[in-house]
Amino acid sequence: MHTSPSPPGGSGRADMKFCSHCGSARIGLRVPDGDNLPRFVCADCGTIHYQNPKIVVGCLPEWQGRVLLCKRAIEPRYGLWTLPAGFLENGETIVAGALRETLEEARARVEPGDLYTVISLPQINQVYIMFRARLLDLDFGPGPESLEVQLYEEADIPWEALAFRTITRTLRNYFLDRRQRAFPVRVSSLERRPPLPPDLLAAG
Amino acid sequence: MHTSPSPPGGSGRADMKFCSHCGSARIGLRVPDGDNLPRFVCADCGTIHYQNPKIVVGCLPEWQGRVLLCKRAIEPRYGLWTLPAGFLENGETIVAGALRETLEEARARVEPGDLYTVISLPQINQVYIMFRARLLDLDFGPGPESLEVQLYEEADIPWEALAFRTITRTLRNYFLDRRQRAFPVRVSSLERRPPLPPDLLAAG
Repeated sequence: MHTSPSPPGGSGRADMKFCSHCGSARIGLRVPDGDNLPRFVCADCGTIHYQNPKIVVGCLPEWQGRVLLCKRAIEPRYGLWTLPAGFLENGETIVAGALRETLEEARARVEPGDLYTVISLPQINQVYIMFRARLLDLDFGPGPESLEVQLYEEADIPWEALAFRTITRTLRNYFLDRRQRAFPVRVSSLERRPPLPPDLLAAG
Repeated sequence: MHTSPSPPGGSGRADMKFCSHCGSARIGLRVPDGDNLPRFVCADCGTIHYQNPKIVVGCLPEWQGRVLLCKRAIEPRYGLWTLPAGFLENGETIVAGALRETLEEARARVEPGDLYTVISLPQINQVYIMFRARLLDLDFGPGPESLEVQLYEEADIPWEALAFRTITRTLRNYFLDRRQRAFPVRVSSLERRPPLPPDLLAAG
């Protein structure tokens, strides 16, 4: 399942202490010839171990004006609400991944709709890709990673108990766009919240 | 730079012979508890090494009806033509990555436009994300990964010498959509070409 959108470690850069190709401990960050960014490079076998952002795919399932949310049964953000979403797997298309996550987390079958939000999270090396989707029936319920799964009217969305800012943004866009009856693809990014300036930190 | 969209190895699954965390050789593919897909798991330290699809970001730079193509100076597909594109880096938004690749491969400055194509390549664990873009000036030229960079009219596009099917699809969509003066985001996937059936193989 591997669906937790924020793995322990946060930055998404896995620390490499040994070369996964030859087992050498002589591995470190350096800029390879012809490159311009530091990579983990093995001084023994020369293997360059690239690390790149991961894709999180998910759905915004709709049913007669309501949207389906899942209460997380796993860390991070245990007990907070999210749209069904998780890491795209090797061998999968983004649509297939979004449907799989919706089935795994909400036991819900949906008809995929249009691509809706694409949100870069450069600080944690993730890109969220969310689709609108039409819930096909009311036979849904919590998968192993959810405590509850529930349909919400706009007025009842637990805004203060949403798990991720990507989910908040996707839902806010959705309810605004719904008033216009148009859902353009929304490409954006979320940077880390700026740290408090020193004077406010001291005051805090 | 790390921009080659099809790394050697093809499938995008890196073979792990040693645990990059503890150096153990007791590493193999198995399905971790609570998961449903095989992962490289270390039998000594227990680390699960996830592998996920990579994102390729790029631009379709436009200038007065012409589009900017790059002739590849690197493998794979040395000598064939492509739109500027490459792997998204950690710490980068998809728009920033597309602009960087355009600058690196074509020495070109562009104003990013709308998201245009999103193409899943499940067989090689990649997702292409291409933006339309407006070339800002004619001060472009080959970066280290390109042999030539050139503006092409539609009639002159070297269709038989394009490097990747994602690029062919993006350009074909573009010229068709341009006739309608509308460029909806196009989400699709490219599966591996089906193998020849046995009787044709025998005949071949």
